[in-house]
Amino acid sequence: MNLLLLEPGEADGRGVVRLEGPRARHLLDVLRAAPGREIRLGVVDGPLGTGRVLRADAAKREVELEIRLGAETPPRPRIDLLLALPRPKVLGRLWAVLASLGVGHVWLTNAWRVEKCYFDTHVLAPETIRAGLLEGLVQARDTRLPVVTLHRHLRALVEDELPREPYAARILAEPDGAGRGFSAIGRGLPPDGRVLVAIGPEGGWIQPELDLLEARGFERAGWGGGRPLRTDVACSVLLGALADGMAAGH
Amino acid sequence: MNLLLLEPGEADGRGVVRLEGPRARHLLDVLRAAPGREIRLGVVDGPLGTGRVLRADAAKREVELEIRLGAETPPRPRIDLLLALPRPKVLGRLWAVLASLGVGHVWLTNAWRVEKCYFDTHVLAPETIRAGLLEGLVQARDTRLPVVTLHRHLRALVEDELPREPYAARILAEPDGAGRGFSAIGRGLPPDGRVLVAIGPEGGWIQPELDLLEARGFERAGWGGGRPLRTDVACSVLLGALADGMAAGH
Repeated sequence: MNLLLLEPGEADGRGVVRLEGPRARHLLDVLRAAPGREIRLGVVDGPLGTGRVLRADAAKREVELEIRLGAETPPRPRIDLLLALPRPKVLGRLWAVLASLGVGHVWLTNAWRVEKCYFDTHVLAPETIRAGLLEGLVQARDTRLPVVTLHRHLRALVEDELPREPYAARILAEPDGAGRGFSAIGRGLPPDGRVLVAIGPEGGWIQPELDLLEARGFERAGWGGGRPLRTDVACSVLLGALADGMAAGH
Repeated sequence: MNLLLLEPGEADGRGVVRLEGPRARHLLDVLRAAPGREIRLGVVDGPLGTGRVLRADAAKREVELEIRLGAETPPRPRIDLLLALPRPKVLGRLWAVLASLGVGHVWLTNAWRVEKCYFDTHVLAPETIRAGLLEGLVQARDTRLPVVTLHRHLRALVEDELPREPYAARILAEPDGAGRGFSAIGRGLPPDGRVLVAIGPEGGWIQPELDLLEARGFERAGWGGGRPLRTDVACSVLLGALADGMAAGH
């Protein structure tokens, strides 16, 4: 646990929070929390801070912390993802991965090669999504919960909703690595620009979908490694290379 | 299945191979293989090629293919990995990921913060490793099986064995993203140079280990995203950004 995440409002008026359950157990059993110990923490969609252990009760499995929060909430990640709904097994792994990489908004979409049954999975239940995302935030020491929305009509999403977002770049990931590399694109982005990355289904987008995306300003780009990757690995590689380039560009 | 992988010697003298088991079932049930159909295939550590379906027997669950192989084996990936042995759950996921990303040699090593019990896992059994690696090769349409070796003494590995390898660069991954980014380092590598990436245990290398690696020419580098990542995600992000930079550099 790289960060203790609190829900907004969990602390009382004096800035004291009493924890039970998994977080208390982790503090007691793994971090061996004892009074006086400082713990790195954050509030979901709020600031980072520290907590000083006031009381650590191994018998009752309770920990009480006095928390001090910073003034500012971490900035929202500048990368958003337009993702064709992957199969449930892959999707279940993705929530923590995406939150740890730092994604602002995950637009999950239907596509021609997305199986209809993928929409019925428990992996899309709000509590499952949230649990996975929180796990990723804890790993990455971030508090900014990615926004996740589900869209059954790619055309309506691409033509009506996405154009309202002021993206500095829209990138269409090529499975075979054609086009400019993601790190090169990252280097060329303006310092504060947001960017949207589209990653297709296994088997790829069909031609009318590619035409639709390109007509709406998506630029084709690839991974320099040029090998077809599983969706979860592709997300790590492409968003990771993009972020690496963005940091190097400035 | 992006590639049908054959073991060396599986084809008879006439270039005909008869498949049973999981590969035959996939050809029959998913790819709906019928006589005349061309299938993309490769031989482990050998060339890529195609196979023409001669016979597809749904009742017997058998497929017979006539294979034609190219003249050349794909080049060995230019990136090697020095990895502190991760916990079994993470390691079990890693084989397919690493083979799909393209790694020449995986040097698994002990380190101060590696739990001793990690060495006793079934995930280190040769057949488990091989099955995971083959899965990654099938995903990435490659035939080059990564070499995996296990080392109980980091110092002996770093001082005696690694110096024999003619690496053009040795990179020490910084969990907090300090140092040059991986894609920038990739851009600067010579066109045929091999590179070794060291990724530490959860909790990081201890200072004497860092000193040891730096004394042997490892350069610190980070991921521009600057967030601590789980080992398997870190491997995807760092090796992926490096490969992206290497392709862009030339």
